[in-house]
This record gives sequence, structure tokens and C-alpha cells, in this order.
Amino acid sequence: MKTVESWAQDRFHEECAIFGIYGHPEAGNLTYLGLYALQHRGQEASGIVTYDGHAFHSRKGMGLVADVFSDARLKALSGHAAIGHNRYATSGGNTLENVQPLTGKTAHGNLAMAHNGNLVNADLLRSEMEASGAVFQSTTDSEVILHRIARSEETRLTDKIVDALHAVRGAYCLLFLSEEGLIGVRDPHGVRPLSLGKLREGYVLASESCAFDLVGADWVRDIEPGEMVLVNEKGVEFFQPFFHNAAQAPVKAQCVFEYVYFARPDSHIFSRNVYQVRKRLGKELAREHPVDADLVIAVPDSGVPAALGFSEAAGIAYETGLIRNHYVGRTFIEPQQSIRNFGVKIKLNAIREVLAGKRVVVVDDSIVRGTTSRKIVKMIRAAGAKEIHMRISAPPIVSPCFYGIDTPTRQELIAASHTGDEIQKYITADSLRYLSMEGMFRAVHNSQDGSSAHFCTACFSGQYPIPLAHAETRQPALF
Amino acid sequence: MKTVESWAQDRFHEECAIFGIYGHPEAGNLTYLGLYALQHRGQEASGIVTYDGHAFHSRKGMGLVADVFSDARLKALSGHAAIGHNRYATSGGNTLENVQPLTGKTAHGNLAMAHNGNLVNADLLRSEMEASGAVFQSTTDSEVILHRIARSEETRLTDKIVDALHAVRGAYCLLFLSEEGLIGVRDPHGVRPLSLGKLREGYVLASESCAFDLVGADWVRDIEPGEMVLVNEKGVEFFQPFFHNAAQAPVKAQCVFEYVYFARPDSHIFSRNVYQVRKRLGKELAREHPVDADLVIAVPDSGVPAALGFSEAAGIAYETGLIRNHYVGRTFIEPQQSIRNFGVKIKLNAIREVLAGKRVVVVDDSIVRGTTSRKIVKMIRAAGAKEIHMRISAPPIVSPCFYGIDTPTRQELIAASHTGDEIQKYITADSLRYLSMEGMFRAVHNSQDGSSAHFCTACFSGQYPIPLAHAETRQPALF
Amino acid sequence: MKTVESWAQDRFHEECAIFGIYGHPEAGNLTYLGLYALQHRGQEASGIVTYDGHAFHSRKGMGLVADVFSDARLKALSGHAAIGHNRYATSGGNTLENVQPLTGKTAHGNLAMAHNGNLVNADLLRSEMEASGAVFQSTTDSEVILHRIARSEETRLTDKIVDALHAVRGAYCLLFLSEEGLIGVRDPHGVRPLSLGKLREGYVLASESCAFDLVGADWVRDIEPGEMVLVNEKGVEFFQPFFHNAAQAPVKAQCVFEYVYFARPDSHIFSRNVYQVRKRLGKELAREHPVDADLVIAVPDSGVPAALGFSEAAGIAYETGLIRNHYVGRTFIEPQQSIRNFGVKIKLNAIREVLAGKRVVVVDDSIVRGTTSRKIVKMIRAAGAKEIHMRISAPPIVSPCFYGIDTPTRQELIAASHTGDEIQKYITADSLRYLSMEGMFRAVHNSQDGSSAHFCTACFSGQYPIPLAHAETRQPALF
Amino acid sequence: MKTVESWAQDRFHEECAIFGIYGHPEAGNLTYLGLYALQHRGQEASGIVTYDGHAFHSRKGMGLVADVFSDARLKALSGHAAIGHNRYATSGGNTLENVQPLTGKTAHGNLAMAHNGNLVNADLLRSEMEASGAVFQSTTDSEVILHRIARSEETRLTDKIVDALHAVRGAYCLLFLSEEGLIGVRDPHGVRPLSLGKLREGYVLASESCAFDLVGADWVRDIEPGEMVLVNEKGVEFFQPFFHNAAQAPVKAQCVFEYVYFARPDSHIFSRNVYQVRKRLGKELAREHPVDADLVIAVPDSGVPAALGFSEAAGIAYETGLIRNHYVGRTFIEPQQSIRNFGVKIKLNAIREVLAGKRVVVVDDSIVRGTTSRKIVKMIRAAGAKEIHMRISAPPIVSPCFYGIDTPTRQELIAASHTGDEIQKYITADSLRYLSMEGMFRAVHNSQDGSSAHFCTACFSGQYPIPLAHAETRQPALF
Repeated sequence: MKTVESWAQDRFHEECAIFGIYGHPEAGNLTYLGLYALQHRGQEASGIVTYDGHAFHSRKGMGLVADVFSDARLKALSGHAAIGHNRYATSGGNTLENVQPLTGKTAHGNLAMAHNGNLVNADLLRSEMEASGAVFQSTTDSEVILHRIARSEETRLTDKIVDALHAVRGAYCLLFLSEEGLIGVRDPHGVRPLSLGKLREGYVLASESCAFDLVGADWVRDIEPGEMVLVNEKGVEFFQPFFHNAAQAPVKAQCVFEYVYFARPDSHIFSRNVYQVRKRLGKELAREHPVDADLVIAVPDSGVPAALGFSEAAGIAYETGLIRNHYVGRTFIEPQQSIRNFGVKIKLNAIREVLAGKRVVVVDDSIVRGTTSRKIVKMIRAAGAKEIHMRISAPPIVSPCFYGIDTPTRQELIAASHTGDEIQKYITADSLRYLSMEGMFRAVHNSQDGSSAHFCTACFSGQYPIPLAHAETRQPALF
Repeated sequence: MKTVESWAQDRFHEECAIFGIYGHPEAGNLTYLGLYALQHRGQEASGIVTYDGHAFHSRKGMGLVADVFSDARLKALSGHAAIGHNRYATSGGNTLENVQPLTGKTAHGNLAMAHNGNLVNADLLRSEMEASGAVFQSTTDSEVILHRIARSEETRLTDKIVDALHAVRGAYCLLFLSEEGLIGVRDPHGVRPLSLGKLREGYVLASESCAFDLVGADWVRDIEPGEMVLVNEKGVEFFQPFFHNAAQAPVKAQCVFEYVYFARPDSHIFSRNVYQVRKRLGKELAREHPVDADLVIAVPDSGVPAALGFSEAAGIAYETGLIRNHYVGRTFIEPQQSIRNFGVKIKLNAIREVLAGKRVVVVDDSIVRGTTSRKIVKMIRAAGAKEIHMRISAPPIVSPCFYGIDTPTRQELIAASHTGDEIQKYITADSLRYLSMEGMFRAVHNSQDGSSAHFCTACFSGQYPIPLAHAETRQPALF
Repeated sequence: MKTVESWAQDRFHEECAIFGIYGHPEAGNLTYLGLYALQHRGQEASGIVTYDGHAFHSRKGMGLVADVFSDARLKALSGHAAIGHNRYATSGGNTLENVQPLTGKTAHGNLAMAHNGNLVNADLLRSEMEASGAVFQSTTDSEVILHRIARSEETRLTDKIVDALHAVRGAYCLLFLSEEGLIGVRDPHGVRPLSLGKLREGYVLASESCAFDLVGADWVRDIEPGEMVLVNEKGVEFFQPFFHNAAQAPVKAQCVFEYVYFARPDSHIFSRNVYQVRKRLGKELAREHPVDADLVIAVPDSGVPAALGFSEAAGIAYETGLIRNHYVGRTFIEPQQSIRNFGVKIKLNAIREVLAGKRVVVVDDSIVRGTTSRKIVKMIRAAGAKEIHMRISAPPIVSPCFYGIDTPTRQELIAASHTGDEIQKYITADSLRYLSMEGMFRAVHNSQDGSSAHFCTACFSGQYPIPLAHAETRQPALF
Repeated sequence: MKTVESWAQDRFHEECAIFGIYGHPEAGNLTYLGLYALQHRGQEASGIVTYDGHAFHSRKGMGLVADVFSDARLKALSGHAAIGHNRYATSGGNTLENVQPLTGKTAHGNLAMAHNGNLVNADLLRSEMEASGAVFQSTTDSEVILHRIARSEETRLTDKIVDALHAVRGAYCLLFLSEEGLIGVRDPHGVRPLSLGKLREGYVLASESCAFDLVGADWVRDIEPGEMVLVNEKGVEFFQPFFHNAAQAPVKAQCVFEYVYFARPDSHIFSRNVYQVRKRLGKELAREHPVDADLVIAVPDSGVPAALGFSEAAGIAYETGLIRNHYVGRTFIEPQQSIRNFGVKIKLNAIREVLAGKRVVVVDDSIVRGTTSRKIVKMIRAAGAKEIHMRISAPPIVSPCFYGIDTPTRQELIAASHTGDEIQKYITADSLRYLSMEGMFRAVHNSQDGSSAHFCTACFSGQYPIPLAHAETRQPALF
């Protein structure tokens, strides 16, 4: 049995989504809905912990949100406060211990934690704590935070968390659930998004605002980099930005790839609507790399906004040239005999009647290994296209991400070792052009300002705003 | 627990897909893929029967194709010939007996059968056969065909089938698998589609050509109304069209709603590409019912081609105003407190930044009960749209279908008892217009010919080309 | 993975249990309990059909009663009348179609049927009916009865059943559930047992009376060979014994092996208590084959009553020498390296402190292939026994059963081709003796009458009271 | 749905079984078999951790051994060393975190631990460790040991364990699996049993010797109270008994109830065969409390050995009067209308033909609440017994156990607050007698020595050899 991984692996993957709520009688149900809206950020596992004023309730499992939580299981997740987590994890084996929210009992009582992002000095911190007697239950980088909180000598939980985070380096949006309430924290660089929303009853925190829309919450504002928020029966309390080191104020480094691909187009991320940014990326792309063609098509669904932008700016008609099968599950039985471009065919099919004899601009958001792009180009060619001009609505990806995105190694990134011409030849397109870094930021800012300030561009530039230390070394499997 | 049925029920549903193959060493695997590509035609249950020259192998189950067939189960489905079936069924309870392919042992040997369509005189035939000692195992209308074949006094299986079908009235595309080979039949009216494809090794028959693309088969031609085809080791044999009654040659009555909504846009149905027809429907709609507006959006995904056509013909920019969640499963936990437009929000979300302050044309393919359209209009309004003009790319639906489509009763069809103005008021749109019957057929024919000849328009016109008899009476549940 | 089959296959197996009830508001629940008490007669699959006056409800599945019926599933089995079936089936593959009760819709309405026994002319009848247009859904011999009933030209269901059974040869206890009530029939030879019991509300029919005890019913009487009983709202109606051919009154041929091994010791079968018969078998055995020994042990649990009888008659102390693991499930992971006598060790363990240095009489009810007896003797020897005298509380098994018991072929029956001395040598016992045919019937009759009249002794004598015809040919798998 | 708990709760329950192995290529498979043989000591959950020299592999789940470990899952449990655990736990809810072996990563590497017994000062130790920053993942008392080991400043793992155990009070047999090998420890009082066995390849440690028999190991000797053993590639190393406090050598306090009820009769516990002890208990009982009767029966299966002993000493015939259903699962659908003695009937049935008109001695091992005994006496009476004399092969149970046995509270123990006469009246027996403490120990020692020295008799005497501290307070559920 061959899995769709081969296809899926040719994309970057967001590693997690988090959702929290306080003050609603159906906190568990709304967290289920929130995770459901955030399913695109993690499909491997899901978990919810609720608190009803007396006891905590937990349910975690492998699979999609809809599979992990049955009606009976949701009923058992009673309470007015909850946090939840979707996980994307490529490491195989028995990883139920790694499914979040992590839970533990400390002197401060029960504590549940959900983490979106990735720590770059977790191994070092872990070794230090093990040396002084800590017992780790998972292999997640996140667990070190739980132990550091348990060991903090501060009295209030919020102070313990700040204390714990002083030693932690990396990208993290964190949600905590304790008897004292719901706590949210965003790292000082603000790599991953975290927003606050308001219900008629209670408050919610989520990775993306699309989760607010589904539960009927209104967007209030982003949690600021380095900011912590506590929600409980007294209301919402914001804590001053904290810094690892007061002398060295951290540089804001928001992930620009959230705009390019990860976030849902209907979300509001880093205070901008994703769809609008993507459409502008397509317009900039058309301006930078015009081409004489008959029609513009997208690689669905992520390439659609940029393709619409390209079409509008270039004045070339937008068409649907590739149809996506919406029932794609996780595993497939691949026939042993070769079927042309099989991997891509599971998910996409070309419409010959649209493409035959045409000069086609194909807009996609990124090329990772190049294997999928090659199959798509060949599929379009087989459908009769006369010319195929691939346009990518972001710069070439040359470096892996260590801040919470599942990316291939540098060796596997085709643009890390090949020129644009070489890639064009490999994918068999008639032309291939990428959007420039400046063009990308002009689209992001919706201005002539092409500056990358306040954003992380590591995957495009190789410049890592948070030093990496041992980040490339992965923790060996525990059990 | 509330299911998404409430939402899903506001669409028509194709009741079945069929796929057959002969002469390929991986017949079971390719049937799995074929059913997978045809998943949109039936999501409730699925089954495959294979034949390996010695024994038949069968696997049927409730759920999606990907859930019913595991790797181990597919391995057990060995053989060079196979037929498969996807089923949509609203009747609840223990319906495993009703999952197709139906199988039975007759004097002629083992016989498996898969049916897409619906018979209108099944009850009568069933009563007759029961009176003479037949034992029925399922409550499907299809089983009467199996019994009639078993009772035929003809010698060859193909003759038995023709004999059996002489008494049968209704819509049917049938696939049979026997020791003699794979047989396909299309009813004399040709209501549902059935096409023949060719692999490097062997032949395939499928409801839609999108299944050919996935398995790597080339489209050969449609099976004609009233035609039967036999595929075995000797090749492909076509049988002359048969008629119920030679004196009264049947009228071709292909389902125009396959173009409007059911079929996948990348399929070739009744010899035309579906996407192209849909886009022309949008163009005709723009010509018939122009409107002064800022942008055109679609109700995704089915409304997209018509919206693009509308945009092109009207010269109004096409935008993505509604985002679809692609992880929608079958059941949801609906919060008890009212969240505005909850049912639709599970699947769709409006992008405020696109819609706010705009005059918006919303293109959809049909309005069934009106409840979903109302929620969509309200969702768009809540996102700030200034004006909302609903445009439907087909005429009003005034009558239920009895030829293999799951439709509400006439009472539930809003257009059966309400004027366009009343519906517009109900769905709270600023204007509402439907495409005319002539406009629809101009789009279908891609000419000025607005004639409905050769097509069934019963759901739009109430004129049923095949007399209904007892069709409205549903068979009571057996066990 | 090695299954316990290897061990289990060295026993005969009852192929089915049936249970029916009429007139109790919890008919489904009580059928569940009845099947549960009859689990020893079939562990492969189970099914219940109920009738609530309006509709029939059905649930069938593979596995033990406790696994097939969940609380929710039992709730759905509402009604005041029900029949149920436990099945033992060695044929592999997808046999869900073969799980009983069989159900079908005929001109007479819905009919469910459960069968304990085996027909010897099913293939012939099946061929005849297929030739005249019947469609068979299962490969069970039982289905021919359903078709014959559907084709009967009688008016009343009871008459249809009699009509249908006139052509049927073999062993059968049948239960039918229809809108007219619950019907029970026992074949004219009375091979398998069937008893009537009475509840405070309603009546029950069961293969063995132990099912009555669990549901709180009182034993009324056996259904006579050739008798039919109808239970409905009017009460209980008995029908005169029917015969295949009035000229040739059938000979009573009750299965003596029900006493030897199949039935539960607390059951009342053929009007005698099974435990008492078994104890007398042990006493006769001691009288026929005395031995000088220190203790008597049983192969648990089936050998215990005979061992107690042997001990009592011989005046040798009874001891527990073999302990049975009561958690034995269906599958085991057998270590690759040889562990002595592994297959038996899963289920039995010898107590060295009881056996070491002793002359031991081991009482068992039968030897089938001899492989298990050999392992048991070796296990007892390894525990230190000085002498091992095997005593079997029935005659040697020399012929297979075709009347509803799953037995090996004649080639596999060790006593069919080996003398007692050869078997003794093979199983490595110091002596081996079987009870004589006369001794067995003296025990059955509890008198000096050693006559086998009214009993089937085919497995011991090779004399088949019902002619076999094609019984040895098994029907090939359908799907 | 009513569960059999009501019945099962009228017994004491062993809370755990442990099994470990080192030096065998199929360590995982043999651990599966060992746990299978020890299933009677815990049926709620099961887990195995293996080590293959490079990585650890773990599988834990709720349910019986045969349900938790499939063939595929056992294949994944590769390695030459393993430990396993069966758990009995009454606390409901999501307890997967509590299933053992517990696992954790410490500075010393990966460590897995399985515990049979119960600690009496776990809460205190837990609070202390939480106060200094420990994060607990389960609510088991056992987890404190893991944390104390992680915090020990010793260098060798064996020293860390001794160091950790110095503060621990209670009953414990522990198995550890680490990169250094397999370690077993028995508490200084030796409350629970632990034996060492030898395979042709490698060594095993198990709660009871019946596990050795199934895997083909020879019994070597008991692990002594306070002793630790390390098995690795160098062989077996025994560590001197350690004491909590050198000044106060601990008193041996082996659980006498292991002989009375818990252990399997084929096991060798505390150097004696259980079956032989139980038979002697019956003999002592007959001597202490003779009665004029017609037959002796047992409450199966646990009462059988004592009943045989009673029969032998009293010269009254032993009979099988109660039949046990061996297919009893965990849940039952109890009919709403009352069936007499329903709870017991699921598991037991009386044989009228044996009991009617007889004066019957019924031997059981214990009376806990009395409700089951009452039902059994009534069932025997209903079967026609003339007189019923209940004989119990142990003294009255007057106190709960806090050393690893699941017992009701003192209030629920009928003998804690009622005289023998009152209990006799409640259970409706004609007479009721218990074995004396001295009689019990005469049987244990197989001599006239009725001394309880070296044994714990807390449940019979209320004298607790290990001070209880906070043992009665149960830890609240964590998540």
C-alpha cells in the first residue's frame, strides 16, 4: 500500500493548531469546532482538555478531529474552559504519548498545555532537567516547558510560566489550562500567529481567526509577540511583553509563509486577510514576470487566489484547468503497473477541453522537491496544452524551517541546489518564474515597501532570526 | 449530535456510481480507484466483486470507498474482472443487505450486479415474482432484475438479461459480472450516463469518464441508450439496441441535471465536457439576467464554473468570497446556543475583506428547499455586502426525480409552491433570477438551439418521460 | 500467528444453537441471554431477528454473542417475538451472508429462519430450484427450505412449511419468525434436541434447557420428532407429526453424542439430565475397564462428570490434575522455538504436586485425531506420573457426522484406521480403553438395556439412519 | 446495561500481575504468553515494553491480553528483553495513562516499570516531589518510585532503585526494564509473590509459576523479601536484602489470601503448591465443622479444591452441583423484569437432578458482602436441596486490604459487623461455618503448626503489618 504521503510530502506542512476558550458552558464542543476549522494546520492527531471547576477531562487520539471525538466522548468533555490541539507529525510509531495537550500534575495542581511552534534549545534544556531528576513522558520539545514551570519557585502560575520561558528559545504559541484559568503566550519573535476573540459568553484564543468565525466569536486583536494573556472569571488580563534578556529586545520575525501557503484564506493573520495578500502576490507576480498566454489556471486550492490576482493584473482569462478530488483520504492502493503521473492523479485531474491547444499560465505558491510540479506540468501537457508557463507566487525555497514547519532537508529542496533554468527543465515547463522577495513583501504590505523587516524569511533566504543551536538534531524515540 | 444532513439535504444527490473492468490483472485495485474517482455519486456504502477465473470475491461495507477497502481486503479481491458500486441512500437502519453489487447464485452460475438509476415498476414486478415463489433478500428495486434473469428461459446470459429487462421500466445503467465476462447495459431512454474506456490491458465501463482518467484509460465512447456490451477474453461485443416494445421506440431522455450539478466537471457526459457546459450556463445566465455589480462570487465548489462564465459574459470581476472547509465529515456536534447560520458555517466561510461594501452577484446551480441559500445570503450580508444578487444557473426545481436521484418531496421544493419573488424574499436576497429552460439548453448544445429534445427535464418541468406508476410508493423496510 | 484451532479441531463441534421466544416484552434481550447460555454450541457468528407487530429488526455478526450485540444494538431489537442463532462454521472467507437467522421477503411476507442440523439432499434441491429461477444468497444448506416455503402453493404458513419439508432429508431443528408468530419444527428422526419452555409471560423454544434456566423459564417438554409448534397471541398450537412418506414412518435417531460431549451438563436433553448420563458413562467405564491406580483425573471440563463416575465406581480418589485457563481466546502467538506440548499448554496445565509418582487414570470423552490426547499424556508424564491409564467414556469414533456436527474426514479420525493398541502407543499411554456401545447405552438408559434403538450412532458405528446422498460434497463458496 | 461487576464485586480481586524476561529472541511473544497465564490477576488493562538493544517498544491498552495485543502489534514488540503488566482497576474513566508498564526518560536513559502491590505512603511522597518540581503523568501510586529513581544521586541503576525504595512503604513486587537489563525487586515484607524461572535461553520473573509452565521455563526459586535481582547479558546477579532501616529488620508478611483465593491452583507460591494448600484447607474445614450430609459440592471454580478436601476428610461424596458458563464476558443486558437470582445465573446454573432432595454441603473460599452467597444458596434451594450447609475454607473477612488487593470498604464486609448466625440467616443457609485461623495455617504449613508468623492476616484479623498512614485516601483523578 502506497500512501499519499509521496504527494503530500511535496508541500510544507504547518505542524500544529491551538484553540482555547474560557467562560462558555459548551467549552468542549466549541473547542471541537475550533479545531475542526483549524484542521488544515495538523491532521495526524488531536486532543482536547476541559475543566469544569472540579475536575479536568481529557481525550486525545490519532487522526482527524472528526474521527477522534465522537458524540459520547464530547459529552464527557464537560466544563466552561478548554484547550485543544491539532498535530502534524511525520515521525511514525506509537506516538500517542506525544499527542497534545500535554498534561501533568505539579505542586501547583493540574496543568494542560498546547504548543504551536518548535523550540530550538529543547534538547539542551531537557538534558539539564533530566540530570536533576526529571522524568519525561514524551519526546516532544514542548514537554520541557511543563517541567520548567513545575520547577519554578515563583508563586503565581503566570509568573512560573514567564520564569520557565526565560530559558526557552524558539517559536511558540502556547495555551495553558489550569484551575486558575486559560493562559495564552506568544514568543518574543512572534513567529506563529495567535489571536484573541470574544463570544457573547467568554473568550477564545486561536491560531487563526477562521476558528472564530465558525464558533461565532468576534476577532478582538492579535496577541503581541512576547505577550501573555490570562482569561478567567475576572475577565481578560494582559501581561507586559517579557523578554529573554532586557538588554536585547527581540526582533519581530513573523512567518511570511503563513501568508504564502499555510493559513486559510479566510483567516486574519498578523492583522491582514490572507486571501487579499495572496491575490496581491499574484498581481506582483504578473507584473514581474508577464507572459503572452491564452489563460491562467491555478494549482487548486492553494494557488487560486494568486492565479486570480495574476489573471486580473495580466488581463488574461482565469480558467479552471485542474479539478481536485475532495474525497482524498490518507492511503491508496497504487496499481503495480505504471499509470502516468499516478501520484498527482489521485488528487487532481486536468480538463482537456479547457487546456487543449492553449498557452497556459499555471500559478502555484511554491515548489519544494519539484516532483509534483513536474507531474502537474506533464498532466497539463498530456491534456493538450501548447505552452505551459509556471509562475510561483513566492521566492525559491532554499532552506528548511526549524520554527514549527515540517520541511524536507536542504538536500531535498530543489531550489537549494538548482538554478531556475534547471528546475524549469526538470519540471518540463516552457518557462518558470518566481516572485522576488521584494515583490512578496510589497504584496504583504500592500505598498511599495518591499522590506522584510518584522518577518522571518529563513526558508527563502537562509537567514534564521532565532539562532539554531541543536535544532537539527531530533530527539530519539522514547518508547 | 446534529449531522450535516440538514445541509446536505438541501442538494439533490446522485444515488449511485458504477464501475466495471475486464482483462486487467489488478481488476480489484483499479475498481477501487474508479469508485474513488466516482465518490461524489454516492458516499453511503461501497462494494466490489471480482472474479479470478475460478472464484468470485466480494467486499461490501458502509462508508466511503477509502474506509470500506483496506489494503488486506483489496488483496483478497483478486482477479482479472470486477464490478463496483457506490451508493447514496437516505433510508436508515441496517442496510447492509442493500449495498451493491447484489450477488446471487442461479442455475446460470454466480451473478453479481450493480445498478445506477431507479426502476418505476419494481414494486409491481416484485409482487408478481413473490407470488410465484421468489425470495427477496434486499429492499432495493434492483433485485427484481436479478430474479427475472434467474427465471428467464433463454440460454445465453446476454439473452436472459434482455429478456429480463423487457418488463422493466425506469432508469438504469447496469453492470453484470459472471463467469462469462463483464456486461454493461443502458436503459432505452439513456437517463444515466455510461461510458466505455480502454486500458493498455483490458476495458473499463464507468458512470463518468473522470474514472477513466484516474486508472489511465482512454475514453472510447458512450454506451448508447438501449445498448448492451459484453467484454470477455474474446474482446468487446456490442448488442443491437433493444426496446421494450418494438412498435414504440423509446424516446431518449438524458438527465440534464447531470450537467447542472451531479457530474464532476472534468467528466465527459453524454459526449460533452461538463465544465464547459457549466461555464456556458453561467454565460447564458449573465445574458438573460444582467445586473450592475462589483463582483461575482460562486457558492463553491459546484457554482464555480457558472460563476466564471457569468463573470466573463458580464465583464464583472470574479472573486473568491466563500471559502470551503475541505475536511467536512459526516457528523457534527452543534452547540446548543445559537450561532448564526451554523449549518452552513461548517462548510463555508465568507471573506469579509472581499465582500464588505460591495454589490455582489452570487452564482449557484440550484435552490432546493431554500434554507441553505438563505443562510448563505445572510452570511454574505453579515460579511458586509451592500447588495446581494442571487443567480441560479438552471430553471426553478418544481418536481421530484424518480429516476435515480434522491430529491425531497414536491412539498419541500420551495419553487414548487412559491414564486420567484417569494423565494427572493425568503432567502433575503436583493434580487434572484433563474436561467430559463431555453437558456439552459442553449448552453448544453452550445448553440442557439434551446430545445430540450433527447433530455429529461422532469425536475424543472414536471413532465416525466417514463410513466411513473407506483414509483412514489417506497418499499417498506424488509429487516 | 497460530490459532487455537489446532487444539479445537481435535474435538467434535456442534454446529448450531437456536432460541426463540413469543409473548415477552423483552424478546430481544431474552434471546440474547438464551444464545449466551447456548454459546457452547457455536462461537463463530450470532444473529437475532425480532418482530414488534409492525416491523422486523435484525442484527447479525461474526464472533461471540457478547461481541455481536452491544447495548445499543439490543435496544434496536425491539418486539415481543424473536428468534436467534449461534453458528459454528469452519469455512473461511466472507461468510456474513451465511450467518443466520436467514431472512427473506416472500409473497407471504417477511420470514426469518434459524436452523440447527444439516440437510443431506440440499444440493439436489438447490439445483432443482435454481433450474426454475431461484436466486440463492447464501451457501448454507438451510436456504433451500426458505425457497421451498416461498414456492409452496399452500395458504397457511404452517402448511407451507410442512409442504416444503416433505422433500427435505437430514437433521433439522428449525425456528421461524413471521407476522403470524413463532414456529418450531423438529425433523422426523429427531436428531437434534429442541425443547419448549414457559415464562410467566410467553413461551420459549431452545436447543437445550440450560437456556431456560438463565431466562427464568420452566421446561415444559421436548418437541417430538416430526412435530411442529406454533406460538402466537392465541397460545401454543401443536401440529400432528408429519412424515416424508406416510408409508414409511421414520425411525427415531437422536444424537447420542449430545450426551457424550455436546450438550451442557446442566441441560435436559431427550428427557434426561446430561450430567447424570455422563456420570453413569464413567461408572460403566470403570466396570468394563478397571485398573489398579492411585487417582482418577479428568480432562477438564467435559471429562469431569465421567471421571467422578469412574472414581465412585472404582473406589479410586478423584483429583484435579489438570487446570484449565478460563481466559482462552481464539488466537495465539505461538513462539517459534518449540515449547513442549505448546498447543495444549495454552488451555491446560498439569499440577506436578498432584501427579508426581502416581498411577493416574485419565478420563476423557473422546479421541478424535489423537494429537491432543498425546500431548495431554505427555504433559502428565512430564509432571511425574508413574503410570497413565487413559479411559474414554464412549466407543471409538470411526465415522464422520453429516447431521450437523463439524467432524474431520474419516481419514483424520485415528480410530477409523488404527486399533486400540496402535492408538495407545501413539498417545504414549500405559493403557487405553473405550467404553463399549452397550455400556454407553446402559448409561444412557440407566438400566441394563444396552440397546441403541431410537439413537443415531453413526460416528461410532458407521450406520447412517438417514441416507447420505451427496452429503459429502460441500457446496463451493458463492462469493 | 448492567455489568457483571455486581457479581464480580462480591469477590476480592488481585490488582496486578507482572512478568519479565531477559535473553530470549522472542521476549515480546513470551511476555504475551506469560501475561496470558496470569490473566486471572488483572483483566482491565495490559501492557508490554520490550528492548531490542537499540530502541524500546511499547504497547498498552484497555482489556484482556488477547484483545490488547494483535499479531501485528506483537511483531512490533521486538527485542530480547521485556516486561509486562496486567491491571485490575475499578476506577473508571480515561485511565490509559495509568496502564503499566510506566515509562519515562531520565538522565539514566529510558526506564520502564511494572508494579504489583500497593504503596501506603505514596501520597506523602508525591506531594514532596511535586513541591520540588516533579511533573506527574498518572494517578498511580507506582509513579512516585519512578520519580525517586530519577532523582537519586547514585550512579548505578540498581543503587538508584535501592535509594528510591528506602522511603517507600507498602507492598510491591517491581520489574524494571532499562538498557542495563531486567531488574526485579520484592518488598522487605514479601507481601506479594515473585519467582525466578529459567528458560533454555534466558531468564523470566513472574508473579506466579503458572506463567513459567506456559512459556516452558523451569522454576528456580522465589525472590526473597527485600531482595533485588538483575538479569542481563552477564547472567543473574542477586543483591543482598535491603531494609528501610537497618535497626528495624522488617517482618515477613506474605499474603495468605494468595493461597485461599487469588493464585492459580497450579502455581507454586511462597514455595508451596496452591492446589495442595487449598485441598488441605478443605480437610481442616471438615475436621473443624463436620456435618451429616449426602453430598459435597463446590462453588466453581475456586471452591473445587477445598470441596474435594472436605469430601475426602468427611467421607461424603463429591458432586458437581453447579455448572459454570465459561463464556461469561464483561457486560450483560439484564432483563427489566425480575428473574430469580439473575446476577448469579449468568455465571452459574444448578443441576436439579443432582441436588433435589439432598442434604448438601457447599464449599466456598470466602464471603465478602454475602449477596452472592445468598443467591447461590437460593439457587441450590430452588433446585430442590433439602438442607444446605455452607462451609468457608478461610476465617471471616473483617478488614479491607491496602496492600494491592481491591476490596470493599469495612462497611461492606458482612463479617465486619455481623455474627456468623446473622450471616447464616442472611444467606438463608441451614448452617454456616468458617475455618479457624489456626486451621488455615495448619493447612498452609501442612503440620499441626497453626502459627500465622511470616504471613499477613490483615483481612481476617485487622492487624496490619505495614502501618497504613494515608492509605485509605485515594488520589483524585488527574485527567
